Amino acid sequence: MRRSFWGWGYEEEALNAGERSKLAERLTPLLGSGLSSAAPPSIDDIELPPVGVTVPDALAGVFDTTPTTRAGHCYGKSFRDVVRGLAGDFTAAPDAVAFPTSEGEVVSVLDWAETENVVIAPYGGGSSVTGGVEAPLDQRDGRPFVSLDLSRLSGVVDVDRTSRAARILAGTYGPALEDALRPEGLTLRHYPQSFEFSSLGGWLATRSGGHYATLHTHIDDFVESIRAVTPSGVWESRRLPGSGAGPSPDRLLLGSEGTLGVITEAWMRLQDRPEHRSSFVAKFPTFASAGAAARTLAQSGLWPQNCRVLDELEALVNGAGDGTAALLLVAFESAHLSVDAQATEARELVADAGGSVQPSTRSAETWRSSFLRAPYLRDALVQFGLVNETFETAITWDRFDEFVVRVREATAAALISAGCGPSPLVSCRLTHVYPDGAAPYFTIIAPGRPGTERLAQWDEVKAAAMGAIAELGGTVTHHHAVGRDHRPGYDRQVPPPFQAVLRAAKSTLDPSWVLNPGVLLDRRVTDAIP
Amino acid sequence: MRRSFWGWGYEEEALNAGERSKLAERLTPLLGSGLSSAAPPSIDDIELPPVGVTVPDALAGVFDTTPTTRAGHCYGKSFRDVVRGLAGDFTAAPDAVAFPTSEGEVVSVLDWAETENVVIAPYGGGSSVTGGVEAPLDQRDGRPFVSLDLSRLSGVVDVDRTSRAARILAGTYGPALEDALRPEGLTLRHYPQSFEFSSLGGWLATRSGGHYATLHTHIDDFVESIRAVTPSGVWESRRLPGSGAGPSPDRLLLGSEGTLGVITEAWMRLQDRPEHRSSFVAKFPTFASAGAAARTLAQSGLWPQNCRVLDELEALVNGAGDGTAALLLVAFESAHLSVDAQATEARELVADAGGSVQPSTRSAETWRSSFLRAPYLRDALVQFGLVNETFETAITWDRFDEFVVRVREATAAALISAGCGPSPLVSCRLTHVYPDGAAPYFTIIAPGRPGTERLAQWDEVKAAAMGAIAELGGTVTHHHAVGRDHRPGYDRQVPPPFQAVLRAAKSTLDPSWVLNPGVLLDRRVTDAIP
Repeated sequence: MRRSFWGWGYEEEALNAGERSKLAERLTPLLGSGLSSAAPPSIDDIELPPVGVTVPDALAGVFDTTPTTRAGHCYGKSFRDVVRGLAGDFTAAPDAVAFPTSEGEVVSVLDWAETENVVIAPYGGGSSVTGGVEAPLDQRDGRPFVSLDLSRLSGVVDVDRTSRAARILAGTYGPALEDALRPEGLTLRHYPQSFEFSSLGGWLATRSGGHYATLHTHIDDFVESIRAVTPSGVWESRRLPGSGAGPSPDRLLLGSEGTLGVITEAWMRLQDRPEHRSSFVAKFPTFASAGAAARTLAQSGLWPQNCRVLDELEALVNGAGDGTAALLLVAFESAHLSVDAQATEARELVADAGGSVQPSTRSAETWRSSFLRAPYLRDALVQFGLVNETFETAITWDRFDEFVVRVREATAAALISAGCGPSPLVSCRLTHVYPDGAAPYFTIIAPGRPGTERLAQWDEVKAAAMGAIAELGGTVTHHHAVGRDHRPGYDRQVPPPFQAVLRAAKSTLDPSWVLNPGVLLDRRVTDAIP
Repeated sequence: MRRSFWGWGYEEEALNAGERSKLAERLTPLLGSGLSSAAPPSIDDIELPPVGVTVPDALAGVFDTTPTTRAGHCYGKSFRDVVRGLAGDFTAAPDAVAFPTSEGEVVSVLDWAETENVVIAPYGGGSSVTGGVEAPLDQRDGRPFVSLDLSRLSGVVDVDRTSRAARILAGTYGPALEDALRPEGLTLRHYPQSFEFSSLGGWLATRSGGHYATLHTHIDDFVESIRAVTPSGVWESRRLPGSGAGPSPDRLLLGSEGTLGVITEAWMRLQDRPEHRSSFVAKFPTFASAGAAARTLAQSGLWPQNCRVLDELEALVNGAGDGTAALLLVAFESAHLSVDAQATEARELVADAGGSVQPSTRSAETWRSSFLRAPYLRDALVQFGLVNETFETAITWDRFDEFVVRVREATAAALISAGCGPSPLVSCRLTHVYPDGAAPYFTIIAPGRPGTERLAQWDEVKAAAMGAIAELGGTVTHHHAVGRDHRPGYDRQVPPPFQAVLRAAKSTLDPSWVLNPGVLLDRRVTDAIP
């Protein structure tokens, strides 16, 4: 199969004509307007800038300057990216893409980039939805740009069955990673929505959240040690189950988004593969009441592996419900022990909280397949000319109800004001629940202006939504990273002394700003501690 | 009651004559020599250096220069500290102790210290066992030294029952913290051995480990947000249940050990108070077989709250066993649900692993009271003229058996070589178990040379033990912090690029090195990235 150079995943897996017309039928009554689909771009029609670097002989085999590869590494997979890709705008494509097959080649590429004054963006699976893998022309300072694709630095190279841990190269994609662990009866059990087209290194660099609701779900908690190449040398922490020796080195690389170094491998904690499962679905009259039930579960000590809340619209659009009720999806699983008792206790708690527990789990299954297929769906919506994007956050329970209402209102108002029709769709689900709060995830679907004119509309809406979130005390991102797109909110959220430290770290490790200028920090601005 | 200025806790709680003679009776046959107890020092006999600072008028009420206060803030509570205190050596006592009652006063003290060129050591409960709260003369660069005692910045000032979280001032000691939460039915449930005489701020600054074995036990995981005063401004993170916005600011303060700023308060995650409990004890023929059973439990998904292994000697010395068997202590607890089923499953796993499950839990109770009383016991052992200290580490399971054997051997050999008698006692327990490893905790008791001559013996042994741990891949500290005493091992453990970043952070936030010079980093050395 062939990777799409402008949209998600494999070209062959995109929605077919039948699926597209079914989707259009479902959305037309909601949006109140007809939908027709734009054709995808052809690589032959794409105009790329001339290659502005000379590939060194010693690294000739590492670099690729073919048009499909360059175009395919121009963007991540956000709405802004797909709109630009669909419109054939690849003016900021990398001059070349490097595919190192060893850590030594990563070092060589970084050395060369520093000497030749080249900008490098580390690239795992390219699934960034925050502008994290591109290099906008105005942030390059006139330098050439090379995308550093780690996908050939791939594989599970060491398994420690006793400690249940493995040394895994950073470019390993989700499916290959799980395939390698399956014969050992082990699993990393980390399933972000991007699972099929994202890599361990990308998960670590962006502090990825898996799709599990409670306990171990953030990639941060699975790390024993990380190895990274910085422009100033190799960084490797000691493989340990726990340590209190100074601030955690790993926790500074986690979330560094390729600005401090290129993660090359990590020792990761694994789990035995689950054998026992139990799940159920409950209907609630409102999103708030379903959220309250999720809070009760999250604070119960039952630790359900899944505890997801869909509002009425989210359930309808994904085919998991009929749009009349909010849904709470609950699942338990265990490698060793029956989970029937926990599921029974959870059903009782949910019923006490006003939920109507459903006998069948069909909704959950429908939801799951819809979840994994969503990025392909998004491409189709973009082809329909719609504005379609997601954003997510996290907030403590005390502010939860008002927060969701107000963010939703602010977003809808911004959509209307931006000219996205009189009745834009703004849905919400909870992707994660914690004892002390939840992670609301918003999806918007609305009519937009033609082609790339939609981008200005979205930028206006995004600014309003991010402003509301920052104002109301949420985080600018719970698992989507900061990249470039969340910088305005991030700059409000990050404590200024920490931002100053981050800048000092950047100057120490990457003094020439080879890596990802504009991600997390700008090169030119000097942040003053107030 | 009156705090001891040279040893642990309250003077009135020290071992009485009867307890001391019982202890001597138990140890004499093990050590093969009689024991007599040195009298504690009197503050009237202590010679303190002259006060070398002029207290500013505006802060007059904040400072205390009385001898007992100055002497009491000279050291932490390690073996080295207690030996020096018992010997009346207070030549490095602080010039004054500041007791701020507000964050504004913390700011004023730091501003004054920077202007007047004074060294500051933040002081919570003073329970450091790593040289973390002192200021050795050779690390002051001739500057005066003020201990910054946060104990009057104390209290639970805000409780969010919905999110189960509270805003707590940094100087709050363990008992006061739990007393304030009890009426709400909540608990932080963090019980380090120092609980009675340590503070939230100290726990955060040192990455404290609670006494729970699995899941949530490290203070790191309870943090929603931290507020700290740095010499360059106030650092405050946003209160959140989760975030993926860049590297976690909190995780850089956690473990910073007072070198980057003074933590003044934090929002902490709480739990409902446990109502359901079940526990048991199992005997094993060897420490290794008990460790293997603990590993099975840690990987089972049962998440026992306690899962502690004592070797034969540890069980004997603490009165929890007769010295013929290693013990595994297991406990479950829950706020909402019965834990009987988990305990039954755990008993079966333990029996399958070769453990002889005991009907009574007397050992566990004896152990628990002994655990909390241990620091007072240690003072008595020091008064007996013994070398008595603990050190701890963490290691993955694959290397566990060999690691414990070799660290134990290296320590015993070093004790003998240092002249600590032909048969020093070296015992081991596991304080924490993880799915991927465990935290072994070693205790040594051996005859030593008189008075402070013992310090050189201990330094020799400590260097050998730390060397073995570093060589064999363990961490230099799992929950005791780095301070000054673990610097040699820490400097080997920390990735050089991260050390360079830490130095850059120090230069950014505390350019005059007011805070804790010598902790984590030296002022004079320039670490080069290799």
